[in-house]
Amino acid sequence: MTVSREVELSGHIIDSGMMQSCFGVIMDLGGSFEVDEFDIGRSEVEESYARLTVLADTEDELQSIVHELHQNGATPSHPVDATLEPAPGDQVVPSGFYSTTNHHTEIRHDGEWIPVKRIEMDCAVVVEKGEDDEPCAYTKVLNAIEEGELVVTGETGIRVRPPERPRNREGAFGFMQGGVSSERPSESTIAKVAEAIAETKREGGSVLAVCGPALIHSGARESLARLVREGYVDMLSAGNGFAVHDLERDLYGTSLGMNTETLDHPRKGHKHHIYTISEIIRAGSIEQAVDEGLVESGVMYECIDNDRPFVLAGSIRDDGPLPDTITDSVDAQNAIREQAHEADMVLMLSTLLHSVAVGNCLPSSTRVVCVDINPATVTQLLDRGSAQAVGMVTDIGTFVPMLVEQLLDE
Amino acid sequence: MTVSREVELSGHIIDSGMMQSCFGVIMDLGGSFEVDEFDIGRSEVEESYARLTVLADTEDELQSIVHELHQNGATPSHPVDATLEPAPGDQVVPSGFYSTTNHHTEIRHDGEWIPVKRIEMDCAVVVEKGEDDEPCAYTKVLNAIEEGELVVTGETGIRVRPPERPRNREGAFGFMQGGVSSERPSESTIAKVAEAIAETKREGGSVLAVCGPALIHSGARESLARLVREGYVDMLSAGNGFAVHDLERDLYGTSLGMNTETLDHPRKGHKHHIYTISEIIRAGSIEQAVDEGLVESGVMYECIDNDRPFVLAGSIRDDGPLPDTITDSVDAQNAIREQAHEADMVLMLSTLLHSVAVGNCLPSSTRVVCVDINPATVTQLLDRGSAQAVGMVTDIGTFVPMLVEQLLDE
Amino acid sequence: MTVSREVELSGHIIDSGMMQSCFGVIMDLGGSFEVDEFDIGRSEVEESYARLTVLADTEDELQSIVHELHQNGATPSHPVDATLEPAPGDQVVPSGFYSTTNHHTEIRHDGEWIPVKRIEMDCAVVVEKGEDDEPCAYTKVLNAIEEGELVVTGETGIRVRPPERPRNREGAFGFMQGGVSSERPSESTIAKVAEAIAETKREGGSVLAVCGPALIHSGARESLARLVREGYVDMLSAGNGFAVHDLERDLYGTSLGMNTETLDHPRKGHKHHIYTISEIIRAGSIEQAVDEGLVESGVMYECIDNDRPFVLAGSIRDDGPLPDTITDSVDAQNAIREQAHEADMVLMLSTLLHSVAVGNCLPSSTRVVCVDINPATVTQLLDRGSAQAVGMVTDIGTFVPMLVEQLLDE
Amino acid sequence: MTVSREVELSGHIIDSGMMQSCFGVIMDLGGSFEVDEFDIGRSEVEESYARLTVLADTEDELQSIVHELHQNGATPSHPVDATLEPAPGDQVVPSGFYSTTNHHTEIRHDGEWIPVKRIEMDCAVVVEKGEDDEPCAYTKVLNAIEEGELVVTGETGIRVRPPERPRNREGAFGFMQGGVSSERPSESTIAKVAEAIAETKREGGSVLAVCGPALIHSGARESLARLVREGYVDMLSAGNGFAVHDLERDLYGTSLGMNTETLDHPRKGHKHHIYTISEIIRAGSIEQAVDEGLVESGVMYECIDNDRPFVLAGSIRDDGPLPDTITDSVDAQNAIREQAHEADMVLMLSTLLHSVAVGNCLPSSTRVVCVDINPATVTQLLDRGSAQAVGMVTDIGTFVPMLVEQLLDE
Repeated sequence: MTVSREVELSGHIIDSGMMQSCFGVIMDLGGSFEVDEFDIGRSEVEESYARLTVLADTEDELQSIVHELHQNGATPSHPVDATLEPAPGDQVVPSGFYSTTNHHTEIRHDGEWIPVKRIEMDCAVVVEKGEDDEPCAYTKVLNAIEEGELVVTGETGIRVRPPERPRNREGAFGFMQGGVSSERPSESTIAKVAEAIAETKREGGSVLAVCGPALIHSGARESLARLVREGYVDMLSAGNGFAVHDLERDLYGTSLGMNTETLDHPRKGHKHHIYTISEIIRAGSIEQAVDEGLVESGVMYECIDNDRPFVLAGSIRDDGPLPDTITDSVDAQNAIREQAHEADMVLMLSTLLHSVAVGNCLPSSTRVVCVDINPATVTQLLDRGSAQAVGMVTDIGTFVPMLVEQLLDE
Repeated sequence: MTVSREVELSGHIIDSGMMQSCFGVIMDLGGSFEVDEFDIGRSEVEESYARLTVLADTEDELQSIVHELHQNGATPSHPVDATLEPAPGDQVVPSGFYSTTNHHTEIRHDGEWIPVKRIEMDCAVVVEKGEDDEPCAYTKVLNAIEEGELVVTGETGIRVRPPERPRNREGAFGFMQGGVSSERPSESTIAKVAEAIAETKREGGSVLAVCGPALIHSGARESLARLVREGYVDMLSAGNGFAVHDLERDLYGTSLGMNTETLDHPRKGHKHHIYTISEIIRAGSIEQAVDEGLVESGVMYECIDNDRPFVLAGSIRDDGPLPDTITDSVDAQNAIREQAHEADMVLMLSTLLHSVAVGNCLPSSTRVVCVDINPATVTQLLDRGSAQAVGMVTDIGTFVPMLVEQLLDE
Repeated sequence: MTVSREVELSGHIIDSGMMQSCFGVIMDLGGSFEVDEFDIGRSEVEESYARLTVLADTEDELQSIVHELHQNGATPSHPVDATLEPAPGDQVVPSGFYSTTNHHTEIRHDGEWIPVKRIEMDCAVVVEKGEDDEPCAYTKVLNAIEEGELVVTGETGIRVRPPERPRNREGAFGFMQGGVSSERPSESTIAKVAEAIAETKREGGSVLAVCGPALIHSGARESLARLVREGYVDMLSAGNGFAVHDLERDLYGTSLGMNTETLDHPRKGHKHHIYTISEIIRAGSIEQAVDEGLVESGVMYECIDNDRPFVLAGSIRDDGPLPDTITDSVDAQNAIREQAHEADMVLMLSTLLHSVAVGNCLPSSTRVVCVDINPATVTQLLDRGSAQAVGMVTDIGTFVPMLVEQLLDE
Repeated sequence: MTVSREVELSGHIIDSGMMQSCFGVIMDLGGSFEVDEFDIGRSEVEESYARLTVLADTEDELQSIVHELHQNGATPSHPVDATLEPAPGDQVVPSGFYSTTNHHTEIRHDGEWIPVKRIEMDCAVVVEKGEDDEPCAYTKVLNAIEEGELVVTGETGIRVRPPERPRNREGAFGFMQGGVSSERPSESTIAKVAEAIAETKREGGSVLAVCGPALIHSGARESLARLVREGYVDMLSAGNGFAVHDLERDLYGTSLGMNTETLDHPRKGHKHHIYTISEIIRAGSIEQAVDEGLVESGVMYECIDNDRPFVLAGSIRDDGPLPDTITDSVDAQNAIREQAHEADMVLMLSTLLHSVAVGNCLPSSTRVVCVDINPATVTQLLDRGSAQAVGMVTDIGTFVPMLVEQLLDE
């Protein structure tokens, strides 16, 4: 027995790789296809259109193929409404729920295509009446699903549009397509990143910096503080450790016991670290420590002084933690989610854990620059990214100062 | 002006490196020394004794030298009692508190040396009357300190004994001293690790496995499940992701969408992952899912079925999480701390975050084997370890099956 | 001014990614295009055909676009003969010479398409009369070009066919497309590699093993020796160091001074290494050392005993070298080239330098399996590969024994 | 049966770790010891002296212990002359030959201690009459040994002095003891390296730069060229690829086809690379290409223009090679050896192969700075180094420009 389904693709389906992926999916999953119609865009600015019949041996196989085709942007030819089923319990999704990608998505409801709001991958889509009594669709993470909410199931009535390849290479983000490399010219690449930040700010966008402790150890603290002060970083996402190292530098002139300027006393002493936390707990919070004049410089200081919101997320390897640190991982994830959805550009600076957490919440349309000295980290982060993501394998301790030089000193 | 202090070292102070470290500390920190007395052990089984006068230009410098000497095992010659000061507030330590190492430590109280219990690094030492009205000293992490508790401050009245080099290389743990390498003979090294596990079990010890999700992806799930079932793993410490991957394999035959046996369908689908969490939430907990017959195999199944306690700690990058996952990082850390203090041997298997969290709580006398394909992870974990720690750079997907073969099939 | 050129693509131009690459090339290099004709294959077994007009602002830009399109498989619509120019000197190519890819290539000569022999990348193509007086085209490396030889220049009259995506995933080499990962199931992947080796041997093919010294240090020597003896490895390519370590194990039971079985005496002694070389020099060659009974086991022994040819290439970091080692890098490269062209399957085992050297000489149709514990090495090697290349990040010390188990013990 | 030998240690035997190593060696190799005499230096500037009796079960074991003790600086108490035996053939050492360390070494000949010249590890020591008829000892690599030369065998009459820990941390090279880390403050560390180069030049020393191709790709070419021009780099050691990339940048403005300034045209084209080699071959050599005005800038240009000697060593992965490249690995090694012995400071910049080759020839007293983005490379290079070696994990593309800024612009 052979079963079949008709699907369509439209847009820049060749150069975005969409068509190749779809053909690949069908063959990989053991199906076959016939091309029923194909209108190729006559030039690089015209869109193309393809209609295929996908064939498989069993309905199961067909479903799994069609599922993957969906994820890659194909849609059924004769759209029907998306299927909605009530969640059987809090945090429990109906069987066959639709799990989102991080691409722009629409669902069909009462014969109309409506966009899914707050795009984020691995979520369910919930449909409800909005304030204006119009139906409204948005993503919800599993742990926020409530019993009875109407959740999209199956594959029908959903369309996904993967990001297209930029039509030219002029924009700041055209510059590094084709993967990560430690062998690109570092200074020129940093100049391009500076350009992209400046462009984002000119357009009124918001820049989120996601920071790991290596940034402090490697001596880039003053440079990052300056970016916060001068308004090139609008929000900060980090862990408890990052904040403590930054504050320790202010209180004791050391980071994990080392003076990052003179390199003196590189003993393994951890005492300043614990003292710092103790002092901030005594003050009540980082803000109160700044207010009472205890903390007078650094990244956290500039965030407080210039009203840049920050999220400090706790982890099981923390000391302390600081009073400002959100220790519950679900609460912390929700705070990170808010930041991620507000950001127009994200700088991921030497932290795998926090970058993954932020990246999980980002739609594929957000610009991402990921910097780490470990190529595996950069690759892992970009793999979940989009055409908008740029990776750079370099030393964060030289990257941030050079970025500041490009943005502020020239 | 020159200030001085007399310190003593005793034990195997030469071959343990203690004396070299102490001389190094003094010179690195700008001090000088005179050797007042030196009795060298006449053979490798006899201990040595040294008495030094340490000199520095300022009291501050001297303090910082003496602090480091302490960490390396030197003690003042004319011991006085440890200084105790009440904590000025909850989670606030008195100024100058003593921050612990992970080595065996004693403090002097009312003229007697008493051992510090629950040794763990970067903690405070609290002294109180025990049940028998005897004074009792133990470590406390910063966030557990309560106002008014008597906390050890300064450096006097404290002695630390770093672990000594094993006197021979016969034991299972004598085999890999001198660092980490990916160029050691893999099969022979695995045989030694098997020996060490068997030895620990013969001595009635308890083995804690700290596991990352790569263990499941790389196909080692069935082998680890067997070690749990056969009693070679007594406790498990992992993250939410590890448990979900393990359960997904049982429920859907996949791990992150890939069938780990046939390698079929290596699509990036994440749906089974979310379904799995949803199903366990519906059941109420992993235990209930096992009880109702939903889950019938795997690592988590064997833990439930054989009553091996596990701790699942949450993180900001989790999906779900499962009902069993401890989402608050302080609570999770405390649960991990309990496990760490009960373990006689710890296997750190392909997870940096959880291994660091467990490692932070371990005394330097606990045997640790750390296995990861990334040499940087192994190095980072061993750096905080002791003479008891062994690192191996290998593929977890071949390591665990070969370990099982050594332990069970021969 | 706008200049244009017409090019054609044919074959599985969508799912192989050829069409996407070509569109990308044009846009990246600042050109534009019009699709003049497009016949899509109606199913996955039918080929497609496209004819494009490529436009650019200057002839220079157009040339550079057309150059890249060539490399990706596009050909001019109205083919003319390839241009031939005599080499102006030994080792000097005519200006504008055509530099080869590693894909199947044909050139048009006297109106006929003739295949280019000995496909290898970064070479020139030389055309001459063959033995039968028929024109014959083959690749030549720069240093072999002789004055007066007719070298192909420009882009006309050349067509390149990049490898197509396998039409199904059934074959042993369908199993790991989509990149390198350390998180694949290791045992199952090794089983697939074993299958591919067995398949190659069943088809009468030749297997070349490219080996690094880590193979010996990690204890896989006996397993590899067995593969040589049993006929699963037909040729060996390695460096001086590999052979010395292998022979040292036979002569002294150590590898760089360590007994790889008992792990005894892990001293840094290098003396056995130098002795081994000295002994082989005394004997005259490895073969003579085997003949006189000096060497009685190991990989090199099995090569001699079973008549498997080997190439040992020298490097500036060698001790010795052995009399068998080819110290001139051009001579060594030529010897490697011979091996590479004879091989139907290549196992690259833990050596970056030698794997790159072999890989440089391989046509993209040769099956390659690359195994290394360092993901960067695997990625770098596969990047120059083809759809036929498979990467695995694992421990060579467990990989080879498990491979032997799969091939020989089951 | 127990056999024994008396050995002595003198110097800063505790803080250099010499005594600890010796005790460790004895225990690791299954021996035991008695301390017969021990005079500890009373302060950090006084030397210590120890005399031990080493015991073992067999003469073989004792020999192997005494061998290792030698390598670590212990000497027999009652010195006799070194044993000399004639080499039995060209490139063949007498059985039991003494294999050198990279530390300062003396041998006893006719009752006198004479220093071994041209210290280098893994060599034999040859003694002959010097020009003045005085006996003279120097190292010889295996392949230079000639039949009949008198080679030192056994362990007697040899003393080795491992480098001592610097007595203070003031010098430029005191700054980074205690291992490699990517988490040190990058700008401050670069300042220290600049200081060390300046110091070396002020003292009339010679700086050798060992360079990998990543230096060119990452955009640091102009900065390095400036260091050569301004006299901060006196000699260059590199591979064929480095020189070709540097020259390609001059001839075509690209490096492997990419414009390193504008980042334009990042196609994988390799053609400019081959052209460059072809052009230099046509000119005859790099020097002739400079003379005829073909090459007008870059690192190689500055070497020619400022008369800085360079060694280009061939490898099996080279294209070409250039006429200047030494293709025979033994000849290349000898040329590298000359450079290594003349250098007072060596900068190893992003190349493992060439750095190992140079490092193999260095005495442990030469200052070495090793910079690479891969921590494994840095660790591997420093492991063979000395207290004089400093490692830095950073991006070569930002390191060199920042170094120039420190040395030249301030």
